[in-house]
Parts: sequence; C-alpha cells; structure tokens
Amino acid sequence: MQIGMIGLGRMGGNMAKRLTAGGHQVVGYDMSPDSGRDVDSLEALVAALDAPRVVWVMVPAGKPTDDTITRLGELLEAGDMIVDGGNTRYVDDARHAEELGRLGIRFMDCGVSGGVWGIDRGYALMVGGSKEDFEFMRPIYETLKPNDDHGLVLAGPVGGGHFAKMVHNGIEYGMMQAFGEGFATMVRSDLIDDPAAVMTSWKSGSVVGSWLLDLLANAFKDDPTLESMPPVANESGEAKWMIEAALELGVPTPATAAALYARQTSRGGGDDTLRVVSTMRAQFGGHVTKA
Amino acid sequence: MQIGMIGLGRMGGNMAKRLTAGGHQVVGYDMSPDSGRDVDSLEALVAALDAPRVVWVMVPAGKPTDDTITRLGELLEAGDMIVDGGNTRYVDDARHAEELGRLGIRFMDCGVSGGVWGIDRGYALMVGGSKEDFEFMRPIYETLKPNDDHGLVLAGPVGGGHFAKMVHNGIEYGMMQAFGEGFATMVRSDLIDDPAAVMTSWKSGSVVGSWLLDLLANAFKDDPTLESMPPVANESGEAKWMIEAALELGVPTPATAAALYARQTSRGGGDDTLRVVSTMRAQFGGHVTKA
Amino acid sequence: MQIGMIGLGRMGGNMAKRLTAGGHQVVGYDMSPDSGRDVDSLEALVAALDAPRVVWVMVPAGKPTDDTITRLGELLEAGDMIVDGGNTRYVDDARHAEELGRLGIRFMDCGVSGGVWGIDRGYALMVGGSKEDFEFMRPIYETLKPNDDHGLVLAGPVGGGHFAKMVHNGIEYGMMQAFGEGFATMVRSDLIDDPAAVMTSWKSGSVVGSWLLDLLANAFKDDPTLESMPPVANESGEAKWMIEAALELGVPTPATAAALYARQTSRGGGDDTLRVVSTMRAQFGGHVTKA
Amino acid sequence: MQIGMIGLGRMGGNMAKRLTAGGHQVVGYDMSPDSGRDVDSLEALVAALDAPRVVWVMVPAGKPTDDTITRLGELLEAGDMIVDGGNTRYVDDARHAEELGRLGIRFMDCGVSGGVWGIDRGYALMVGGSKEDFEFMRPIYETLKPNDDHGLVLAGPVGGGHFAKMVHNGIEYGMMQAFGEGFATMVRSDLIDDPAAVMTSWKSGSVVGSWLLDLLANAFKDDPTLESMPPVANESGEAKWMIEAALELGVPTPATAAALYARQTSRGGGDDTLRVVSTMRAQFGGHVTKA
Repeated sequence: MQIGMIGLGRMGGNMAKRLTAGGHQVVGYDMSPDSGRDVDSLEALVAALDAPRVVWVMVPAGKPTDDTITRLGELLEAGDMIVDGGNTRYVDDARHAEELGRLGIRFMDCGVSGGVWGIDRGYALMVGGSKEDFEFMRPIYETLKPNDDHGLVLAGPVGGGHFAKMVHNGIEYGMMQAFGEGFATMVRSDLIDDPAAVMTSWKSGSVVGSWLLDLLANAFKDDPTLESMPPVANESGEAKWMIEAALELGVPTPATAAALYARQTSRGGGDDTLRVVSTMRAQFGGHVTKA
Repeated sequence: MQIGMIGLGRMGGNMAKRLTAGGHQVVGYDMSPDSGRDVDSLEALVAALDAPRVVWVMVPAGKPTDDTITRLGELLEAGDMIVDGGNTRYVDDARHAEELGRLGIRFMDCGVSGGVWGIDRGYALMVGGSKEDFEFMRPIYETLKPNDDHGLVLAGPVGGGHFAKMVHNGIEYGMMQAFGEGFATMVRSDLIDDPAAVMTSWKSGSVVGSWLLDLLANAFKDDPTLESMPPVANESGEAKWMIEAALELGVPTPATAAALYARQTSRGGGDDTLRVVSTMRAQFGGHVTKA
Repeated sequence: MQIGMIGLGRMGGNMAKRLTAGGHQVVGYDMSPDSGRDVDSLEALVAALDAPRVVWVMVPAGKPTDDTITRLGELLEAGDMIVDGGNTRYVDDARHAEELGRLGIRFMDCGVSGGVWGIDRGYALMVGGSKEDFEFMRPIYETLKPNDDHGLVLAGPVGGGHFAKMVHNGIEYGMMQAFGEGFATMVRSDLIDDPAAVMTSWKSGSVVGSWLLDLLANAFKDDPTLESMPPVANESGEAKWMIEAALELGVPTPATAAALYARQTSRGGGDDTLRVVSTMRAQFGGHVTKA
Repeated sequence: MQIGMIGLGRMGGNMAKRLTAGGHQVVGYDMSPDSGRDVDSLEALVAALDAPRVVWVMVPAGKPTDDTITRLGELLEAGDMIVDGGNTRYVDDARHAEELGRLGIRFMDCGVSGGVWGIDRGYALMVGGSKEDFEFMRPIYETLKPNDDHGLVLAGPVGGGHFAKMVHNGIEYGMMQAFGEGFATMVRSDLIDDPAAVMTSWKSGSVVGSWLLDLLANAFKDDPTLESMPPVANESGEAKWMIEAALELGVPTPATAAALYARQTSRGGGDDTLRVVSTMRAQFGGHVTKA
C-alpha cells in the first residue's frame, strides 16, 4: 500500500523502514529537515499520495497531534484515512473522529508498543475503529506487527486502541515497579551476593520470565548495581490516565498507582506531604528532622 | 504512691513531674548526671524504694530497655513491680514478663501517648497485664491520665498495652499522611490561595477536626508554607510493627503502609527501585532520564 | 439578610433553620411537597425575593445542580447572587460562573462540612469567589459557621471552595481508613480484649483525638464489635476527584487512594483483578481456588 | 549422582522424574503409600543411599520441613548433605544450618520456581550456601535447571536461596496484580470489545510479553471472561515475608503490598476496616449503608 508517515522520530522512522521493507510505498514527513523526510510540508505529503489517501500520524500526543489532525482535516478529502499511532489520550479520539467524520474522512486510533526494538521484532498494535476500516488498513498492520499469530487486535470502536494501549502501559508500569521493588530489597540484604546475577538467572525456568526481565538482564551486563542510573523516573501520562479511567469505572488499581506514585515522588511530588508529617511530629513530640 | 522512674528525658521527666504534682513520691534515675536525677545508680534507686517496689521504665526501646529490665531483675525481689512505659515492641513483653515472673517480679507494659503536651493535658495510657496488677497500679495511672473519663484502658494481657500503642501510632501515621496529601494537593492548585488558611479554618465545624490539625494550625502561624521544614520524615518503628502484625493476621493496612512508605522513600528507600524502572525504560524506549 | 434556599433535605433544611435562628429571612424551596417548603416553584422563589436576590443551591451534585443553576440563570437578573453549596465537582464551577457571568449574575461556590451535626455545631464553610462577593455574603456565612474563630475561609477564586471541600473530604477518607485499619488489626489480635474500649480511651490525651474518633466512640456504645454494620462502604465522589486532581498536579496521594480503593473493592471493583490472579496461579502451579 | 528425594508431590515427583531422566539415581520417599515411593520410611531412605548421602527435602514449609530436617539430623552422619528445596522462610535456614552443622551435616537452601511446567521446561533454582557445597551439588542443579545459560544461581550464603525465591515470588505477585488490574479496567470499559483478545494479542511485540501472560492467554482460550474463576485468591506466604523483610530493610514495596492486600481483602481481611468507615459515615452524615 501507499502510506504517508508523519513523524519520523524514533518510532515513526523505524516504522517507516519496516513498512518499506515490507513492500509498502512510504512517503515520510517530519518537521525537522534532518529527519530524512521525503517531503517538506503536509501539503506536499498530501499531494504525493493517491486517493484514497492513507496517513499515519506518529507525533507527540496532545497539541502536536491535535494540530496535525486539524491541518490534515483541511488538506485531505472525503474517503481518505488518518491513523493516529501516537500516545493520544483515548478521550481525544472520539473528538478527532467526529471532526474528521463531518468531512467524510475516516479515522482509526492505533496504540503501538515495541519501543526501539519494534523495527526488527515487530510492533504490537491495538486498533480502535470499525471492522471495515480495520480490513482496509490490514496490509499495513500486518507488516508492522510481529511475524506470528499475535501482536494485532481490533480492540473496539474508535478510542479502543488507545484505551488498550493505555492499559498496556499501566500494566507495564506495575511490572517494572515489581521488578524494582525486588531488586531494591535484595540490594539491602546481607544474604544476596549479587542481585543482578540472581535476576539474570530468572531468564529461564522462572515464573517471572518476561521481555522486561530480558532487557534488565541486558543492562546488568554493563552496570550490575545500576549505580550509573539516577534514582528518578518520569511518567509519560498513560498509567495516570489508566488510573483515572479505572477510578471512574470503580476499579481499584493499587499496584498501578503505586508504580506511578513512585515516579511522581522521585520528582518531588510528595515533598509537601512530608513537610506536613514532619511538622506535626515536631509539634507533638519535639521530634526534630534533619535534612 | 512511691515510684521509681528510670529515664528522665522528654517523656519520663515530664511524667515524674506530673506524678509529683499529683502527690506521689517519685525517685528519679537517669544515666545522665544532668538529668536532675535523685539517685545516681539503679542500685541506689532500688535501695531508696520500699517493698513492694514499683519501678517505671521510660527509656528507649530495644537494648536500653532490655538491659534495664534485666538488671532490675537482678536488683528487685519477689513482689516488686516493673512497668515498661517505653515504645517496646509488643513481642518483647511476653519475654520480659516470663523472665521476671520466674523471679516473682510482676510486670506490666504501658503504651504512653501525649508527647510534650502530656504534662499538662495528661497522657493516654494503654496497659497490658492482669486486672489485679492494673488495680494495684491504678493510683499512678489515674494521676498520669487526663482529668476526664478517658485516656486509660487495660487493653489486654501482657503485651496488649504496647500492641494498642503500636496500633495507635499506626493510625497516627495514616492521619498525618492524609493531612499531608491534602496540603500538598492544595499547594499545587491555582484555585487555592493559601492552603494553610484553608486547613486552619477546619479547626471548627469540620469532620476532620482533630488534635493533629490543631497542632498543624499552630505551626502554620509561624510558617504557612512549611518551607522551613525539610521534605523528609523518619519512622520510629511502631507503624512498621503494626503493618507486620497485620500482615500476619491477614488484615490489609494500605493507608498505614502508604504513610510508612512515604517516610522510608524520603530517606532513599525507593532509590534502587527507580533505578530499575529507569533502566528498563532506557532499554526499551531509548528514554534517557536526567538526574 | 434575605435568602432563598433551594433544597431542604438533611443539609439544606438544617441550614435554613440555623439561618432563620440567626435572624435571616429564609424562603425555602424543595421539589418535594413534604419538605416544609415556603414556595412551590423556582419561579415563586425568585418572585418572593427582593433584588439583588441571594439564592443558595443545596441539591445533589451533577445534573440536579446543573439544571437548577441553568433554570436560575433564566429566572434571575443581573446583580443577583447564586451560591452553590452542594458537592459539585470543582471543574464545573468555572462553567457555571461563566454562564451566569454572561447574564450579570454573580456566583460563588461553597463547600460545606458538618453533616447532621452542623445545625448545632455550625458548618465549616470553604468559599470560592471574589473578595467583594465574599464580603457581600458574609452575614450568611457568619451565621452558618461555628461560633468561634474558625470554620470559614475564602479559599480562592471560583472553584476554590469546592476544591478545598474535595480535599477536605479526601483527608476525611484517609483518616477513616486509618482508624478502620487499626480497629481491624486489634480485632484479630489475642492481645486486645476489647478494641472498642481501647479506641474509646483515646478520646483524651492521645495524639489521634479527633471528632471522627468521638463519633466512633459514640457508635461503640451501642455496638462495640460493629457487627451490625455491613463490611461495605460507598464512595461519594470527592475523594476520587481529589485523587484525580492530584494525579494531574503530580502529587502522590497513596493513603487517600488506599481509602477509596477499599470502598470500591467492597463493592466488587477488584473482582476481575482477582480472577486474573487466580487464573494465573491455577495455570502455573496447579493451585485451585475455592470460592 | 545418587540422591534421596523426600516429598513426591506435584513438585518433588516431577523433579525426581527429571533427575532420573537426566541419569541420576533417585531414591524417592513420601509419607503417602500411593506416591510411587521407592522406600517407605526415612530410615529406609537413608539406608538406601551411599555416603556421603545427598537428600533433597521437598515438603511443605514450616512444621513438615522442620520435622523432616530434625529427623534427618538424627539419621544422617557427618559429611552428608541436605538441600531444602521447599518454600521455607529464609530466617529458618540459618537455624537448620546451625543445628545440622553441629552434627557435621552440610546444608543448602534452594528456592525452586517453575510450577507444573518445570518437568519439561526446567526449574529456576536459587541456591544458598557455600561455593564448595554448590560445586558438590552442581550435577543435580544442572539437570534440574533449563537447558540454557540461565535458571541457576548461587544467590548467597545459607538463607540466600530462599531469600531470592521469596523476592522472586513477591515480584510475581506484583506482576499478576498488574495484569489483573489491566484486565479489570478493560472489562468495564465500553471501548473494549473483548479484553481477553486484547491481552492475548500482547503475546508478541509488546513490552508486557511474559510467561505469565502466555499462561493467561492459554486460560482465555477456555474462558475469555474468567467467569468460571471465583474473585478470590489465597496467599502462600512469600510475598508477605518479602514485604516484612523489606520493611525492616527500609525499602518500600507498595506494588507488592498492593498485590498481597488484594488477596487478603478477597478473604475478608478488610471487613472490619469497612465497618469502621461505614460506622463513621453513618454517624456524621446520616449515611446508611445497605449490604
């Protein structure tokens, strides 16, 4: 198929390569002149595609995606298709679909997992939209996904793809936190000589065997104590959105929340809470806290 | 009554004063010569008391208390009474009671709450031991407790006093954390002009009215943003012990654990966990974390 | 002052009585004919008030409040004042203020705490709006609040009152959960004879002394084991909203979340999570779970 | 090698088969006559082995293991070796090693992961003890472990094997909870047609790919909604012990605790907490909770 790829960063660039290698004709556009783009404007991208055009948006969530979709709505025509492959919050998908739908432009949301490894391993794709649109896009999805029976699902109507990806990332947060807690506990125990060696041994035969563990074991080769890594982590939004969605649905997500809170705390989010705690302690007990 | 008070620090010293003011004869001992002690050794303390002797141990939990009780076992005689008023872990009480019991020495554990305010406000006392011993000690307890219908309970057999105090402190941790989370949320909101003023207003009419809130409001007078307080807090053991006891009893204590974990995290306890998280992120996504 | 009170339920009815007792002229309206209402329609309420009219809306949050404010917007005129005293989510306040502002109608949001006890004890009021409007409404606020120096605050601009009340209720959730965890731990311990007696003793001298504890102690008189109470609790929205607001502000609220999750879990919110856990256990270990 | 296997249940029985298939001579003993045991008493087991004897204990943790090790201490002689492969709490290992050491009997602890799949996949082994003993036992370990470079580690001195296994299982708890929370959130969302299909798709290309996910996907084939599974889960001790160990080490483990608490709650552990919450709500607000 012919497809326009907007955003040629770490994800979009690799996906374009995998699509090209799979026999598709990719026209790439990126804001940056150094991106290896094929065209230098959205207008040129649209002009380079045959109707019905297929455009994959792979830019940062929020305003960049909003602006790109709005502009595409002005440039594309009825019957064309936009796939939002970024990390857009699922609640925005319905709005995008509605705005584009008024213009006759089709819309799908597609959550993409796989990171920098996806170019070789294939990407896990979670798609939201109609069955008809899903079949239309299937050649692209089939090329992007891994070469086996999994890694692609029509999760539900528009919004379902990003909802599924959001949940996927929330789970990922929980798993990472679980591994982290285990490592941290072993680091402080006199009974464990080398926590990295223990965790690496779990790659085979163990119940916790996983791709995340494989990645961690890989990193341990260079830095078994992880001393080179600062004790902080950012959050990218999706676990937060999952927790909020679950709150509204009445579903407790304490492990996911624990994982997110650990990251927010590492960025100072709990500082004022502790100031209150220490203040009260100082008041009632004469406890003095040294920084 | 006549009573020996061992440990004349912030708690023991004030309790001795309240007892003296209440008409009791207190013989005070402390390791420090500057403590205002009446005698300069345990031997002298014991010698100064009439049989059956009553000795109140008010020293730090753990080894200091263990050593004091062991030494008292050597110095006291059958029929004498030891009350451990410190923050001893409840599991140690049975051991102390048994060791002393073999010598005919009576033992009670008494959790004491009230902080530096107790000298005036009275202390909340949670006692473990027999009803007979409780009645024997009642004159002392009645003087230490507040001047109303509450603040004194025979919680259960030996160990029950410290168990109750442990739970009391666990609840205190949860309450402090709850106030802290509320303050921290307001600090970051554009809709709240002065979080300290809001919280101070809750002193009357509100569901969250409490002594802890009164203390906090008091501190806000000098430092409404709490900027002078470092964003860290120590833990004193009791919430941790409660969480462990509850774990073994099959009772989830997530709010208490959240409160303890916040303090442990503020002391770096979660650092290695975050190193793992950031390492995995770096591996799969090319995410780079800046310290 | 003259004031129209819309909603004469448990809260609004009692507030009307306190205002009347305070010398204000209250015109009450409620949908229910049995409410003791003074007028039988919003139209009649508006007609009964002198301009500039003051109307206090005390109806359930969400659609009832929305509809009432919309209808009042049609009936009132420029210079009139609406105070939303219900448990409206703070994000809705800006919308209400804007809609009414276009009509020249003034708007304040006022979070009200105190429950059924407020009629005597006074209500804690957290107000959002301008200083000018606050001064205009002060006579009403002063009557509703407790008769001391606290219980009333201008928390911030419109939305700030409900934001402060939301945080207040989130703290309340955490405190209640903390007391609950402590009670539950003592119930299962052999060392505690009567958990209710222990907690009741904390009413004086203790660090956890609070109005919530007083209420609990009151309930213990009739049911010291709480056996008559089902092990479930509903949630009313505000703790959930606080957690969501804090998530967006980057502030971890693990104790508040623990409290909310306990309630959601008691209503079956975690059931599907446990089905997954048990399914995995059954798969890898041959573990069989009996219901 | 020649080895005595005590306990021929789901784990021990399969391990004996794998060892036999690997060319070792296994003498099996189990309390049950129907177990396919080779000998009908510990005495006969010891008699059937050549010195220095190697005995692998694979019986339930706690008293069964304690009793078995004590009895073996009486039957074995200096130079013999006992490996405890069960789920013994790490703190008990030092005691066992010391008791046996006085008799000249060697001791290792070995945490074993792999469940019912281990017979074919191989078992992940985490060993505690000396390097010398580890090398002595290596032929056995090499046969039990998977046929690749992983799945076996000398974690540390005696106790280190069970400590590592404990942490391993704690991580497993967190991972399972994370998957569960994700599934539960999708079940309640209108945007997800088939949560089981979404999660099954993650088997390839996704960051959450793992053996646990594979097992779950396997179970989904028969029951995509998991309706046949009761919403409860038991706990087996190890996550609890990890949380306690971490508490003492000052390491917060909120995700692991969330996972354990979810299980304890499903068994009624939080009921009394909610009774307190509902009691307070009833007191201050006139809230009535229906069971």
